[in-house]
Amino acid sequence: MSAVTEILTKIKANNFTVGIVGLGYVGLPLAVSFAGKNVRTIGFEKSVSKADNVNNKINYIGDITDQELAEVVEAKYLEATTDFTRMKECDAILICVPTPLDMFKKPNMDYIEASCKEIGQFMKKGTFICLESTTYPTTTEDFMLPIIEKESGMKEGTDFWLAFSPERVDPGNKQFGTRNTPKVLGAMTEEGMEIGKAIYGYAIDTIYPVSSPKVAEMVKILENTYRLINISLINEMALLCGKMDIDIWEVIDAAKTKPYGFQAFYPGPGIGGHCIPLDPFYLEHIAKKFNFDLTMIHTAGHIDMMMPHRMTLKISSALNRQHKSIGGSKILFLGVAYKPNINDERESPALRIIDEVAKKGANVLYHDPYIPSTKIGVTNFQSAALTKELLNGCDCVVITTNHNSFDVDFIVQESQLVVDLRNAVKISSEKVYKL
Amino acid sequence: MSAVTEILTKIKANNFTVGIVGLGYVGLPLAVSFAGKNVRTIGFEKSVSKADNVNNKINYIGDITDQELAEVVEAKYLEATTDFTRMKECDAILICVPTPLDMFKKPNMDYIEASCKEIGQFMKKGTFICLESTTYPTTTEDFMLPIIEKESGMKEGTDFWLAFSPERVDPGNKQFGTRNTPKVLGAMTEEGMEIGKAIYGYAIDTIYPVSSPKVAEMVKILENTYRLINISLINEMALLCGKMDIDIWEVIDAAKTKPYGFQAFYPGPGIGGHCIPLDPFYLEHIAKKFNFDLTMIHTAGHIDMMMPHRMTLKISSALNRQHKSIGGSKILFLGVAYKPNINDERESPALRIIDEVAKKGANVLYHDPYIPSTKIGVTNFQSAALTKELLNGCDCVVITTNHNSFDVDFIVQESQLVVDLRNAVKISSEKVYKL
Repeated sequence: MSAVTEILTKIKANNFTVGIVGLGYVGLPLAVSFAGKNVRTIGFEKSVSKADNVNNKINYIGDITDQELAEVVEAKYLEATTDFTRMKECDAILICVPTPLDMFKKPNMDYIEASCKEIGQFMKKGTFICLESTTYPTTTEDFMLPIIEKESGMKEGTDFWLAFSPERVDPGNKQFGTRNTPKVLGAMTEEGMEIGKAIYGYAIDTIYPVSSPKVAEMVKILENTYRLINISLINEMALLCGKMDIDIWEVIDAAKTKPYGFQAFYPGPGIGGHCIPLDPFYLEHIAKKFNFDLTMIHTAGHIDMMMPHRMTLKISSALNRQHKSIGGSKILFLGVAYKPNINDERESPALRIIDEVAKKGANVLYHDPYIPSTKIGVTNFQSAALTKELLNGCDCVVITTNHNSFDVDFIVQESQLVVDLRNAVKISSEKVYKL
Repeated sequence: MSAVTEILTKIKANNFTVGIVGLGYVGLPLAVSFAGKNVRTIGFEKSVSKADNVNNKINYIGDITDQELAEVVEAKYLEATTDFTRMKECDAILICVPTPLDMFKKPNMDYIEASCKEIGQFMKKGTFICLESTTYPTTTEDFMLPIIEKESGMKEGTDFWLAFSPERVDPGNKQFGTRNTPKVLGAMTEEGMEIGKAIYGYAIDTIYPVSSPKVAEMVKILENTYRLINISLINEMALLCGKMDIDIWEVIDAAKTKPYGFQAFYPGPGIGGHCIPLDPFYLEHIAKKFNFDLTMIHTAGHIDMMMPHRMTLKISSALNRQHKSIGGSKILFLGVAYKPNINDERESPALRIIDEVAKKGANVLYHDPYIPSTKIGVTNFQSAALTKELLNGCDCVVITTNHNSFDVDFIVQESQLVVDLRNAVKISSEKVYKL
């Protein structure tokens, strides 16, 4: 039996093991989706505490329920381990590690590189390998392949198969999760595609094959670049509308009545999260290798970079109406998560605004029901309790995230001054200063 | 009876007359929509031939049928005139004149200014005036109002009412036309809004009121800026994909499988038509008055400006494969309309490419079933018949517009070389060079 027939037979009989590298907001829901279909699933995780949590059925990801996790762990379909030598037990290894930017907005490929080395060292012959992390086009073939072949001494297409399939997780999205979001898959060979489709078929309803890993890589970057560009445009329009005394939110609501050719994006204090502010710069990075300057991404990045500072100026303007300065004022920030109703403050613009306002001499506090504590610059902050007394006692309350749980009427009523960067307060007034 | 009550009573009883200034692709369908509901409608048009055509039931606009026009003219609900003094017969005057850019991409307000002067001179007391032309925010209140009040000696809000309601016509759109596309309306006063809603209710199914003319003006600019930005982004991505040997069309098709947060735009040889390449620069113009630099529009404009030149380079690269140069080659362009299946070549990138290629010494021809003749630079061109012999005899055939009527298989089969700027040919080959 050929290696291809062998693995396909095992997959078809559900007599195979999936390894998932990285149990974060992408890897854990994916692992649960496989395990929920009775596929033996091993999660590989560097963090001992995360691996222990999974094995102890302690859920730390909002997009899966505690019960879903508990069920698949109890049924022994899912286990987590920090022992990467156990990759030899797997027929498929799916890589869901982070791809952050460094301080200079250059791609940090360390996690992918480490995963490739471990896979190369520990995988058995006949393994299907797929990267899900967002990265620049050509990563799979030009960056991963040489490492894996060198470490393993094996050849792609005969000894193992390599593919790329971008994660499309939208944290907090109640309608579309891991299973019902179509998944784009680009493999290096036709056999790899066949195997990949068979494997992912257990976890995902719809697989959309493309002709190569680099096409799949570009798909994900296009999706997120589209979002970066449009959020940046609407942020710039919002700043202009502020100067022209036009309510940008009213403009967007009216534009939405166009039944074709328009998709609404909303302004805010800046772009946050682990995708939109990062992914397009992966493309900008690789474009340079092709002597190509991506001017739209560059311009959008410029707008994004200055937004938190512009928001500080808005706070300053609002305080100025009451003849106050940022320095010496007590300023409360409501919400530090990068979007509503989630517990993730990565790349959140709120943190940058708080940092800047603090450096200008304000006494800053924050409240976020989803984030009990956070570190801003070198300072550790605890979420303050949102009481009448707290609101009364602050010179300015800034709405940086519009969590559904916020009682906006109460906040406006009890505050001296509200700077609303999220259109949480629908009606402007002397007391409410809107973006 | 107050002036407001008087006009509302007349409107309610359909005992009123609508005047429409400008019988182009916006004004004529609007006039037909009113007249089709038995509203007495007068079209004011500077062009004697257009006015004669309407009165003789000769249709020149693709978005209305010959029969629709004939019926309302025969029933005497619609007539056209070049006599602007007849504005005194109207209870409402809706302005649908062009707002082009001059050679230096600055707004040309001449048509709006002329309309305002004529309205101010000839309208009767108690007229509702509404501008539909796309223009920069503040035009209605800061540019039109002073002219009309000065010319008429009347006051807005008592003697007449002024509003803005952007046209949203998408030529060739079979699903959404004048009547069933929601219409945003911003009036200067509450009475003006009430009158405007009553009038437009005869021609349009859904009216969406906003708080001021400048909000309505910004709505239209946002809609079209959104399109400019996204087309520019995908054009830039297409150029990068060309260098990276990635098929951008495959990427877009795959990205479209994302069920949320993505809208597909397609690359092409540049942006054409009377809206997308123009409207955002109206906003850029007024932004300068507010000391504001719209960097996204500026960058998009830069990409758009260079696209036809980049397409000339693509043609040059394709010819180079066969060791030919542009100079001395016979090059046929298929389609000069700015989008498929319409007879409008305004701002079409095809014209700019043809002009550049001709200047480089090519023998250029074009074929477009919708456009029998056109002027490019100082030269008049006639559409050539699309024959086997013509295709055989050309060094290069460039698909600049993907009209549905093109027989792509035939074109590819009979041509020596095809440069496809519209993904009309789905499969690349030695003979077919794709954007």
